[in-house]
Amino acid sequence: MTRASIDLNADLGEGFGRWRLTDDEELLSVVTSANVACGFHAGDAVTMRRVCALAAERGVRIGAQVSYRDLAGFGRRSMDVPADELAAEVAYQIGALEVFARAAGTRVSYVKPHGALYNRVVHDERQAEAVVEGVLLTGERLPLLGLPGSALHAAAGQAGLPVVAEAFADRAYEQDGTLVPRGREGSVLTDPDAVVERSVAMARFGVVTSHCGRPVGVRARSLCLHGDTAGAVELARRVRGRLEESGIRVEAFV
Amino acid sequence: MTRASIDLNADLGEGFGRWRLTDDEELLSVVTSANVACGFHAGDAVTMRRVCALAAERGVRIGAQVSYRDLAGFGRRSMDVPADELAAEVAYQIGALEVFARAAGTRVSYVKPHGALYNRVVHDERQAEAVVEGVLLTGERLPLLGLPGSALHAAAGQAGLPVVAEAFADRAYEQDGTLVPRGREGSVLTDPDAVVERSVAMARFGVVTSHCGRPVGVRARSLCLHGDTAGAVELARRVRGRLEESGIRVEAFV
Amino acid sequence: MTRASIDLNADLGEGFGRWRLTDDEELLSVVTSANVACGFHAGDAVTMRRVCALAAERGVRIGAQVSYRDLAGFGRRSMDVPADELAAEVAYQIGALEVFARAAGTRVSYVKPHGALYNRVVHDERQAEAVVEGVLLTGERLPLLGLPGSALHAAAGQAGLPVVAEAFADRAYEQDGTLVPRGREGSVLTDPDAVVERSVAMARFGVVTSHCGRPVGVRARSLCLHGDTAGAVELARRVRGRLEESGIRVEAFV
Amino acid sequence: MTRASIDLNADLGEGFGRWRLTDDEELLSVVTSANVACGFHAGDAVTMRRVCALAAERGVRIGAQVSYRDLAGFGRRSMDVPADELAAEVAYQIGALEVFARAAGTRVSYVKPHGALYNRVVHDERQAEAVVEGVLLTGERLPLLGLPGSALHAAAGQAGLPVVAEAFADRAYEQDGTLVPRGREGSVLTDPDAVVERSVAMARFGVVTSHCGRPVGVRARSLCLHGDTAGAVELARRVRGRLEESGIRVEAFV
Repeated sequence: MTRASIDLNADLGEGFGRWRLTDDEELLSVVTSANVACGFHAGDAVTMRRVCALAAERGVRIGAQVSYRDLAGFGRRSMDVPADELAAEVAYQIGALEVFARAAGTRVSYVKPHGALYNRVVHDERQAEAVVEGVLLTGERLPLLGLPGSALHAAAGQAGLPVVAEAFADRAYEQDGTLVPRGREGSVLTDPDAVVERSVAMARFGVVTSHCGRPVGVRARSLCLHGDTAGAVELARRVRGRLEESGIRVEAFV
Repeated sequence: MTRASIDLNADLGEGFGRWRLTDDEELLSVVTSANVACGFHAGDAVTMRRVCALAAERGVRIGAQVSYRDLAGFGRRSMDVPADELAAEVAYQIGALEVFARAAGTRVSYVKPHGALYNRVVHDERQAEAVVEGVLLTGERLPLLGLPGSALHAAAGQAGLPVVAEAFADRAYEQDGTLVPRGREGSVLTDPDAVVERSVAMARFGVVTSHCGRPVGVRARSLCLHGDTAGAVELARRVRGRLEESGIRVEAFV
Repeated sequence: MTRASIDLNADLGEGFGRWRLTDDEELLSVVTSANVACGFHAGDAVTMRRVCALAAERGVRIGAQVSYRDLAGFGRRSMDVPADELAAEVAYQIGALEVFARAAGTRVSYVKPHGALYNRVVHDERQAEAVVEGVLLTGERLPLLGLPGSALHAAAGQAGLPVVAEAFADRAYEQDGTLVPRGREGSVLTDPDAVVERSVAMARFGVVTSHCGRPVGVRARSLCLHGDTAGAVELARRVRGRLEESGIRVEAFV
Repeated sequence: MTRASIDLNADLGEGFGRWRLTDDEELLSVVTSANVACGFHAGDAVTMRRVCALAAERGVRIGAQVSYRDLAGFGRRSMDVPADELAAEVAYQIGALEVFARAAGTRVSYVKPHGALYNRVVHDERQAEAVVEGVLLTGERLPLLGLPGSALHAAAGQAGLPVVAEAFADRAYEQDGTLVPRGREGSVLTDPDAVVERSVAMARFGVVTSHCGRPVGVRARSLCLHGDTAGAVELARRVRGRLEESGIRVEAFV
């Protein structure tokens, strides 16, 4: 019998110039996949280079965390970007990151949309297709990390690109397996013990307790950990520790 | 006896979003090397994609026209960028362009600094080395197009990167082969006939009449044509026509 | 009996750094109100200063053409900007322009949202209120130039700010007085004669022929002329000429 | 006999969008003058509004901390900005801040260049004059806070603008009263006790011990406290406390 395995991903390199946000060094000792900001919502070239070097050194996979062009809004404001612009901007970001991944002796292994773009391509088919077109422009068959059932995954599937499903241990789920929207009461879990418990339940049994108190199936090959909150590193360590104690292999999906 | 040959390069894709500057389509039917703006002084992702596609279609070589990060100043303001930032930003720009070159079935073939960076790396050894380090980060031995005798060419030579010398048919030269600084009277030639004459003299005999009226040696494998002035396309066509009539092969340097 | 009067407004100063878009000098000899870009979708500080100086010299009113922060998209991409950000950004832009209006011996006289923000505040009440809050932050009771019946005008009215209705001589109207959406066939009129005719009909009788061929009432104190198309200046001159020949006074609304 | 008095100034509002840098709330309970970032090196509109409101509430003076346009470099990279651009950009920033100062019931009271611009206008007469011209554009006779003996103060004096001299309690001084350049050993003092001592000596006697161990005169109406380092707030409090214990009045210079 094969042991269950899970990938841990987190957003990294989300500073810009003088500003820092994520504790990249520490998180890179916990996660197996690094979603590296590519300069559109965060991420300057020096930081991209450094994060790629550290990730490569530790065997952490590098993913392109592509975003709307929106430094002022940290990529959290949904934007009506025309499909051709969005596709080209996605390709631009992946290409820019690829240079640092290669310099570190590795490659960009996957793509994950950030923030408002992530949320939008759950439903917006045109933008989902544009993101997929952007990936296709690179000529690499890069997997798209995202929500199972999303328009992004549908578009990737149609284009023949691999998809990887992720789940959020610190977010409340509806009974149908979708996320309770941010802003609604209880949408984000703040109790570290609960987050650790749910991580193990998700990784081991593909199940989580919904907002309504009943079990709901959440199949995911990767768990997303948040790196930009106080205590993020400590919580990430605990999650990883408990997963390993539970006999779950923590390893990248590619 | 081999015929003389010369490359014609021009800055292209220098619009941004709603703004256009260069007549990319027309110039791509004249030049053999396209210095494509990479987003730091000009050049949005859609334009980069389009220019790369057109260039590839016509067999025009694609070069990364790297710049300081300065949209507001069009990269024309000298900046004290620390070496590690400059190196990483140069690599970032080349990587971003490479994705569109590959999507068009070709590759980035060379690198040429833009504007204030171009002028600065004539003398500034630290920035010259930083640009070279940025190119080395890409893992490709890309030639650096620039002024013969520049700090950039020296740094490239030391790092084992190829260099390509260029000359300017519309700029006045000092007797020592350097350019008369912009702003000085007569530094820029506006008479189209004179520009055409000088192009041929440079390509054929490696010589030009200096500001003082005497011949000065100007060895160049590439002539730079300016694309952002009125009449630029027409002048470029005349230069190319006269070069060809004079039995000079107009062809890319790589 | 008082003669009918009409204001002519146009977007000006819509270049950025090296890039120009609008023929500011020429248009300032035709319009009575200048919607000056404030740096968020276009408009650098030097241009803002120059346009304000020229406008003041010619007695043209200066309005703040406020926008989403989106140079790459020229403010044409709808964005989900939180209300507090939008309000503060609107105030920021007006404040920046005010300094140049004062330096030219005048003041910012009104506010007009640009592009995607203009379209969005026709219906989006939260963003409309945010724009109004931004204006209120300035402490000046500046009129809001926009579509009659828009959420923006409603919000302005509730806050006690004056509103000024504008109409578009080169856009097709639905029978209910709203604009035929861009992108639909026939939404933009390209025949200069038709545009001139409609200008007069709008100014004189408050009426225009709808998309369906029937008259529809369009009460407007200002006509918007577009300055970023070929022939824009010539068309603007013809519109103004015919209005004056028809006995309509062309004058600013404030 | 009048008691000695001193102003305490610090850079505030130096975040941008998602990123924070300075502990604005805490520092505003210590300083008497707030150098508020205006959006060019840091400072989004929401932050500017909030900092102005807090400052006004606590009677802290608001100054415009004007900078080169350089978010990526935090305004720390010297730039060859043409004088007309620099002047207009300075005016733009002051105007944008003024709107939030007025909304808070107060006014912008002074101007202080930031980072690389601060250092440059110590010696660069053209840029110093451009900064002064930018201030003059506002129509207000705003004092310029800066180094005594700087080109900026000379240019301000010639233009009839007031100047305010500041000193740095955590920087080493040469025997001639200039600062030991950053990067040189011992240029920045890290011992909090020493910084507190020097603050008192500067405020009380206008004197400080130079790098060479001898007293040097440092006349300053304002002391600059740094807000972006660990322990900054605690140190600022100690400085203020000791100044007050020493019978020195801590109060704004305007």
